[in-house]
Amino acid sequence: MKWKSLARETLVQPGSRVELARDFDPGRKPKGLKKKDGLELLEQGKAELFDLQDRFTAQADRSLLIVLQAIDAAGKDGTVKHVMSGMNPASVDVHGFKAPSAAERAHDYLWRHQLVVPALGRIAVFNRSHYENVTVTRVHPEMLWPASANARDGRIWHRRYKDINAWERQLTDNGTVIVKLFLNVSKDEQARRFLDRIDRPEKNWKFSRADLAERGYWDEYQYAFNEMLSHTSTEYAPWHVIPADHKWASHLSTFAVLLEQLRALDPRYPTVSDEDRAAQQKARGTLAAELGG
Amino acid sequence: MKWKSLARETLVQPGSRVELARDFDPGRKPKGLKKKDGLELLEQGKAELFDLQDRFTAQADRSLLIVLQAIDAAGKDGTVKHVMSGMNPASVDVHGFKAPSAAERAHDYLWRHQLVVPALGRIAVFNRSHYENVTVTRVHPEMLWPASANARDGRIWHRRYKDINAWERQLTDNGTVIVKLFLNVSKDEQARRFLDRIDRPEKNWKFSRADLAERGYWDEYQYAFNEMLSHTSTEYAPWHVIPADHKWASHLSTFAVLLEQLRALDPRYPTVSDEDRAAQQKARGTLAAELGG
Repeated sequence: MKWKSLARETLVQPGSRVELARDFDPGRKPKGLKKKDGLELLEQGKAELFDLQDRFTAQADRSLLIVLQAIDAAGKDGTVKHVMSGMNPASVDVHGFKAPSAAERAHDYLWRHQLVVPALGRIAVFNRSHYENVTVTRVHPEMLWPASANARDGRIWHRRYKDINAWERQLTDNGTVIVKLFLNVSKDEQARRFLDRIDRPEKNWKFSRADLAERGYWDEYQYAFNEMLSHTSTEYAPWHVIPADHKWASHLSTFAVLLEQLRALDPRYPTVSDEDRAAQQKARGTLAAELGG
Repeated sequence: MKWKSLARETLVQPGSRVELARDFDPGRKPKGLKKKDGLELLEQGKAELFDLQDRFTAQADRSLLIVLQAIDAAGKDGTVKHVMSGMNPASVDVHGFKAPSAAERAHDYLWRHQLVVPALGRIAVFNRSHYENVTVTRVHPEMLWPASANARDGRIWHRRYKDINAWERQLTDNGTVIVKLFLNVSKDEQARRFLDRIDRPEKNWKFSRADLAERGYWDEYQYAFNEMLSHTSTEYAPWHVIPADHKWASHLSTFAVLLEQLRALDPRYPTVSDEDRAAQQKARGTLAAELGG
């Protein structure tokens, strides 16, 4: 199957120096695959993902944290909506992180994320994540928090990369599998999607004036993303760069990464002890007798 | 369409005296509908539910709390898995309530549920709920908590019904729509499902000796359910009794109740102000110029 190769071509090699503009084409589509066939493939794959999730939840010895990070209109919400809607919501928690509340700003910048990391057997999706603290705040240092953080100290970003790597190491050492997805959209495609939001009545509430102002910082964001990808793609929690200009190709690549990750974990239903098995057989007799069979 | 009538026949009239054995047939199937057609109908309906959910989330002026309550093996997990898996997980939170932790038992019995009621625009599913405190604990008064609760005081259950009704009234007065689903399974069908769990390797980890012991309290549970349904089906948060012996019929009835509820809310995408609309048109020009169009 092509899932493995689709997943592999998104990987950011740990330790490598990333330049998005040079290394990753936002417009890439799976070779030899048309949109219609791609979407069909995605729907077919969902049954396997559903089954793997069922085993993963039953086994409950690991948790899965999916990090979605990207610039505006790259397709974060659409990824949750179209790639993850086939999953069993019983064990999936989606957390959208907006501007921090006063209570959140009164803690260190990882705190609000630590509160909602997934428990064993569960899957958490961070729609925007702790990486906002080295991207948005790097572009807009005036947003830095807590107040003691000093943006003028040139080392702050490298310290944050180290903090984040250390935190992710601790999580992965304790059973959490981390899948980090960066949705890589081009500047032209962002403009087309903003225009689409403006023009479609059921979407135009999504577009605010601030979106255009933020677009003005495109180059600064690309720089912050390059830095983030270069410094926080690790062996234990690597980044995946998803080509995001074509939604169907983006969903297919994202799905491939998730499917391959769950396949690699090879989750199994728990087995029962011999003692419990014997008790079950005894219960079997009682129940069958009650049914008169 | 038959959704409306399917939903209507599950309703527990507020103020009525319920006797499950007399009033609700666990084996009921939708009239004139075969299993295959029923399942097809369900899949077809999911697109409409998905669209309604999208509007509901965007509008964000109400929240939806779905309460699932039932005896073991009645199909609570399956309902989440098969009825709600078509939804967008971005705005759905499923909370399973197991035996309370020490910290939870150090608070009143509604506390752990109050912590996770849905925010505006969100949907929460309580898989088991605050109603455990008038069913399981009514059957097993030794499980009552907090410690100051006195099971020997004959009025405790009626006080709890009043407490719960008052809490639900406060929630519904503040934008939460409450849908309460009781999955009504027969004693024979429970036995068949336990046998199925014992016999199928991928399911037998789900069956514990305690399940058979608990089945021994069948009549006590039916009594507790009758009392619960009679005292807590209110105009603002009525109960629905779902016929649960046939899984497909159960899923169809549950889906009908949810769909009809969301249809009745008639959620709409937010509209933008004239001022914002003008700003969007200005942004439109800037973006189109950037694209060279």
